[in-house]
This record gives sequence, structure tokens and C-alpha cells, in this order.
Amino acid sequence: MSGVNVSVSPWLSSPKESRLRRPLRIAIFGFGTVGSSVARILVESQPEGLDLTHIFNRRIDRKRVDWTPASVEWSEDADAVLASNVDVIVELAGGLDPAGNWVRRALDAGKSVVTANKKLIASHGVELERLAEARGGHLKYGAAVAGGIPVIPGLEQGLAGDRIDRVVGILNGTCNFILSQMDEGAEYAAVLAEAQKRGYAEADPTEDVGGFDARAKLAILMRLALRAVVDPEEIQPRAITQVSAIDFTYARDLGCTIRQIARAERTGGAIAATVGPMLVAQRSPLAWSRGTENMVIFTGQFGGDVVFSGHGAGGQPTAVAVVSDLLALAHGSRRVEIPAVQASVSAEFEVPHYIRLLVDDRPGIVAEITGYLARERINIRAILQRPGYPPHALPFVVTVEPCKSSALQRALASIRTMNCHRAEPLDLQMLE
Amino acid sequence: MSGVNVSVSPWLSSPKESRLRRPLRIAIFGFGTVGSSVARILVESQPEGLDLTHIFNRRIDRKRVDWTPASVEWSEDADAVLASNVDVIVELAGGLDPAGNWVRRALDAGKSVVTANKKLIASHGVELERLAEARGGHLKYGAAVAGGIPVIPGLEQGLAGDRIDRVVGILNGTCNFILSQMDEGAEYAAVLAEAQKRGYAEADPTEDVGGFDARAKLAILMRLALRAVVDPEEIQPRAITQVSAIDFTYARDLGCTIRQIARAERTGGAIAATVGPMLVAQRSPLAWSRGTENMVIFTGQFGGDVVFSGHGAGGQPTAVAVVSDLLALAHGSRRVEIPAVQASVSAEFEVPHYIRLLVDDRPGIVAEITGYLARERINIRAILQRPGYPPHALPFVVTVEPCKSSALQRALASIRTMNCHRAEPLDLQMLE
Repeated sequence: MSGVNVSVSPWLSSPKESRLRRPLRIAIFGFGTVGSSVARILVESQPEGLDLTHIFNRRIDRKRVDWTPASVEWSEDADAVLASNVDVIVELAGGLDPAGNWVRRALDAGKSVVTANKKLIASHGVELERLAEARGGHLKYGAAVAGGIPVIPGLEQGLAGDRIDRVVGILNGTCNFILSQMDEGAEYAAVLAEAQKRGYAEADPTEDVGGFDARAKLAILMRLALRAVVDPEEIQPRAITQVSAIDFTYARDLGCTIRQIARAERTGGAIAATVGPMLVAQRSPLAWSRGTENMVIFTGQFGGDVVFSGHGAGGQPTAVAVVSDLLALAHGSRRVEIPAVQASVSAEFEVPHYIRLLVDDRPGIVAEITGYLARERINIRAILQRPGYPPHALPFVVTVEPCKSSALQRALASIRTMNCHRAEPLDLQMLE
Repeated sequence: MSGVNVSVSPWLSSPKESRLRRPLRIAIFGFGTVGSSVARILVESQPEGLDLTHIFNRRIDRKRVDWTPASVEWSEDADAVLASNVDVIVELAGGLDPAGNWVRRALDAGKSVVTANKKLIASHGVELERLAEARGGHLKYGAAVAGGIPVIPGLEQGLAGDRIDRVVGILNGTCNFILSQMDEGAEYAAVLAEAQKRGYAEADPTEDVGGFDARAKLAILMRLALRAVVDPEEIQPRAITQVSAIDFTYARDLGCTIRQIARAERTGGAIAATVGPMLVAQRSPLAWSRGTENMVIFTGQFGGDVVFSGHGAGGQPTAVAVVSDLLALAHGSRRVEIPAVQASVSAEFEVPHYIRLLVDDRPGIVAEITGYLARERINIRAILQRPGYPPHALPFVVTVEPCKSSALQRALASIRTMNCHRAEPLDLQMLE
């Protein structure tokens, strides 16, 4: 076995240099946390083949920094930058408009686009990829899901040979931060305030805590992993705000914790997907994710479970995904196009459930509740009632064996008609 | 936000079909567990753009199966298959020879090669990639490290924008199976026998348990992640056979377990690397890997820790990596070439250590041992001595604060001169 006998930088041999021709001219649209992190890496690491030429932002004077080369043009005129000779637009403004308009115009002009815009890709990814292909450009969005974790490149380039039937993920760092802090005893309002202070949560946290952010990311993963083109608005999100301290207590009694989970699976010909708080076993990888971390688990017919984990958000990790996409473009890497077909989404899973009730106690409540469950042929797994709570606001939990979501919802509709409730009953899927 | 309004299989639009031109003609070299799994996926899933045309094996008649299409040519003549009009050789024979010869000849003829051969890539990857590039073919080896886990595509396509300073991995499923079973009370010899029965371990297990398999994989990851071209033989492996039941007991007392770890890091200008059994905290992701699973953690300057985990070996998971590489070739995906420079490897880490001694007890042993450590300015962290062992064969453990490996080895050389030892002292790195 002979050693490697090359002298210096062997992978920078001449054929490659000739392939790279000239560096890609790059314009960053949106100079916030991620945009400035991308610029920093481009300026400091000077990756071969990448040349930062333009930075666009509204009211650009607020944004100027002193560490970019003099050659970089700062602009608040999107039209002028789009009309310039840049090769790639790095779209980091987010949202459908005007970002979608810039992306379309860039692709239409034969430029390539690298974006972290999950909302745009979830809703218009197929249309935009067709446009890119028709005009000879490329669309890359490795940063749109799970930030710095290479879930999308891993899927496209390393799992395309499998048939993936199931995706389970922690896709929103804000919710994971809130729930993992609540697990350690903090109250929702206090943790949310801390998350806002640290910049993990927006002033209006609905997009995150309501599950809308995670559902856009799930829709993207469903297209690439389950090969199903879905309308993200068909996925029903449930907010984590329904979860309270008592649920973490009962979850622990069940050997579980609570996480915001995005899940989708193919069963037979149907695709089911949902986003919301769920119970996960403490020994499951999903319980390992703490703070703002993300995690994605794909289950393939051939390869079994593959887990990706790391920092799903934040300027620098997201910038790694953006710069990696830019390098892939510069090196001529092409997307492995995974054929996907249009599909509609159901919310029908067959899983065990956790049902937490808060009641004004009287005789017969358990009999009535279990009667409604029995009518739907739902088997009780366990009934948990901790001592020490006042009888007029008594929390207790019923867990049930795997049953269809629709059957459970029918039973819950009956349970809700009872006049004993001090709070809306909470039902959570239990991941096994 | 409008829904997606395409009808069927939108990613199979005409521009792509024209790009794929004709399917790649594929020859499998080596029809063992992985080779037959690759063939099964190609035959059953019929991925677009991939056409299995040849299967080569020595004494091919033993290997024939009845489920391949009649068009597949079975051959025991490597020269004839190499001289045929196949586009891609899938090399699954393993080892340096004759596999290396086939790979070189295929690349030299302008064909592409997909291989799972870690030994060949670790020792000759740079040379073979230059050959591929010079002749217009491609070399892909996603299956060479961590089987079905897309570590290499994830690195090349999704982490190229980061600067990775550290790689820590569980890269050998056999060792992980043995150590995780020993953690639950089994004896080494019994677990090895079971691993051999299940097909996880070879009749001669040296390659796995001695750390040679993991070090080849580590050398490949060092090139792609740390950008350091190293001679794998410069990495010193240590065998897991030194670990015994008592070490798991003491590891548990320390909140740890024991895993075979491959680790490499860049500190200043130097590259340190080693492979061997180490203590890992029970709350570390590395302790989650059970059975034959693999795990790799990269630490980047920008993106922080990224974790990949899944099935690192076995026919089907490895076949997923091979077929994914084939699809990437068919779709025109190109490697993101990560510039790497020649580097020499030290074994110098600065980490805490676990030292287990088995002594014929007499007064003064601890004083003498701690004296030798003090002479090297090594601080004691803890001394553990469980009751219940006979004084003539007394196991006890000293853990020390982070110190240089070289200082520890000097102290151990002195400790070994003592006449009290009933077994060779065992020192293990502790991962923090």
C-alpha cells in the first residue's frame, strides 16, 4: 500500500481550474443576519470561484459595513442589480413578495438563484425549478430546511437511491428552544420572552409557534423524500401554545418529553402529514435535540433510519448552507432531480395518543370518557391521575393504543360535550 | 400564495430527459451482499437513467440469480467487461488488488467508477481522482464511509462552505456492536462469536477490532472535512480487545460508556488523528449509537456540530449509497472539489484520560502512580476503587485532567516499571 505521493493542493489541478473558468459574480439580496454571515464567509474565506459583487437592501445606508472589498457595490435598486452582469442572486429577504418576484426575474434572465426562502420554495418550488431549467440557470435552496444541516444535499445526492416512506423532524428551532426549556420547568410566557430577547423568536411568534414555518419545510422535504408535490396549506398545523407545564409532568411519567414534530408518511397510496406538539420517547433521538437544534429522520425501505442533526437556524449555520450551494454551482454540481408527483395530504395517522383533560371532578367522568372512546373502538393504554391537585381543576391523562386520527377526533367531539371541562381537552400524537 | 398547479411528475420535464440522453450502462464487479443489493434496487426500482448490463464475479456460476433481466451479461472475465461499452464500473470487490487495477483501467479508459472500497480510496483516492479528471470520467465513493449515511455527499455538497476543525465518528459497525453488547454485560469472546454468526464480523476480525477499517474511513473524512491528504498508515489504531468488563463498570460510574472512536482535529497548523476505544459521556450523541450503527460528528467554525447517524454497513444501506452515486452520475452532478493539502499526522491530543490498573495490592501504589503523573504535571481528576475485588488482583481507575498524549505516555512508561501489575495498564481518551 503506497502512500499518497502528491506535493501540494492536488485537488486544484489544472483541468478543474479550466472548468471553473471565471468566478461566479454574486449578489446578496437582503443584508440581515444571514446575509452578513454569507458576506463574511465570502470575504474572509475567499472560496475559489466565488466573487461577491453586489449587496442589495432597502435603505442600504443603514446596512453598510466597512469590511467588504471596495469592489462590492452597495445598492437599494433591485432592478439595477437584477439587470447587472451578476451570475447568481442569493435571495435572503424571505417571504413570497417581493422576494418571489426577484427570484423569478433572475431565473427568467438565465441567472441562478440560491435561496433560504422556505415559504417560496414550499409553495412555488416546482414552478421555479422548471423556469430555471428552461432558461439554463439553477435554483438551489439547501438553506431553506434545517439551516446548517445538509439535509437537502444529503437527500438529493446520497439518498436518492432509496425509497423513503417516512419523514420525522424537528424543523423549528424556536419551538424546540421553548419546549426544551419548558421541559426543565420554565413557563411558556417566560421562555417566549427569553427567546424573543435572544433573537430566536419574532415579536409576533405565530409563524413559529403556530407551526407554519415547520409546515413549509415539511412540504419541501415531502417533495424530495416522499416524492410528493403537496400544497403546504393542506397540512394542518397545531400550535405548541396548547401545551402546559402539567403535560411535561405527565409526559415524564410516560418516559417521554414533548417536542414540536413535523411528520409525513406514505401508507399505501396515501400521504399523511401534520405538524404540532407530540410526545416523543426520552430514549428517542428526537428527545436529544435541545435548544434551537433541528433534527430530521428519514426512514428508507432499503437504508432504514438516517438521522441528521445540528444547528437549524442562526446566521452562521444558515450561511454555511448558502455558501455550500454557491460552491456546488461554481463546481458544476447538478441537482439530482427526484421525480415527484402531485399528491393531496391527509391528516390521518394511526398512532397512539395522549389525551389530557382538566375537569371539575364528579363521579362517572372516567366511565363516560372511556365509553366515548370504546364507541370508536379505541383501546385505553393507561390512565394517569397524579395526587395533589384540587378536585375542581383536576388534570388527568388517558393514553390510547394506536388508532386512526379521525376516530379519535370523533371520540373527542363527544368528550367535549361533557359539562365537566375546566379547559379544552388536549390530544397529542405519541411517536414510537 | 397560490398552490402548485402542475399535473404529473413535474420533475421529469423534457429538458431533463434530453440531458440524460441515454441510460448509463452499468457493470457490477463483485456480486456479494452489496453487489446483489445494488442489482436488486436497479432491477426492482428501475431508476431512470441506469441500465444494469454486466455482472462480473470470479466463478460466476455460483453467483447467478434468476431475477435479473435476460439482457444482463454474467461474466468471469474482468478484461472483457472492462473492454466492453459499459459507462460505469461499480467496484464492490474491495481491497487494493485486483480491485485497484480494475478501477485504474476503467478510469484510464474514460469510464466512471462508483466504489465502496475504503482501503483503495484512503490510500489512492487523490491519484485516482486525478486520473478520472484527466480522462473525463468520474470517481464516486459515497459508500466507502458510513454505508447508507450520506456523510460524503453531505460534506461535499452541504458543508463545503464551512471550515471544519474536528471529526469524531463511530465508523465501524462491528466494533460498535461488540462494545454496545459488552456495555450490557456480555463478554468479548461471546459477542465476537455472535457477531461472526450474524455476519457482522469476519473469521479474522483484526481489520475491524484492530481499528484498521475505521482508520481508512477516517483518512477519507480527513481529506474531505479537514482538507488534509494523509497516509492512513500514519494513523495509530488501538484495538478494542484491551477493554474488559470492569472498564464498562467504571465507565458507568463516570457517567460514560465505551465506544470505538475515530477522531481527527486541526489544532493550530497540526493535524492529530487516532482510532481506538474511548470513554464517551452517556449523554453524548456518540453513546446513542447502538448495534451496528455508525455516527459522524463534524465541528465547523461557522456551523457548529453537525451529526449524521444511521446504518453504516449491510448490503441494503450500502447499496443505497452506491445507487445514489449512480443517479448523481446520470444526472450530471459533479463533485464539489474541496482543495486539500498533504499533511502528516500526529497522535498528540490534549484530552482527559482514563487509566485502569489491575494490581497486586500493597501500600504506596497510589502514591507512586500519582507521583509519576505529577512529574509530568498531569492533574488527577478522580480515583475510583470499587469494593469487592480480591487484593491480589485489584482493579482501580485514575482519571486525569486534559493533558498531552505524549506526557501521559511518558508517565505510563514509568508506571509500567512498577512490579505490582497483574495486567497491562489501560489508558483511554475521554471525549468531552
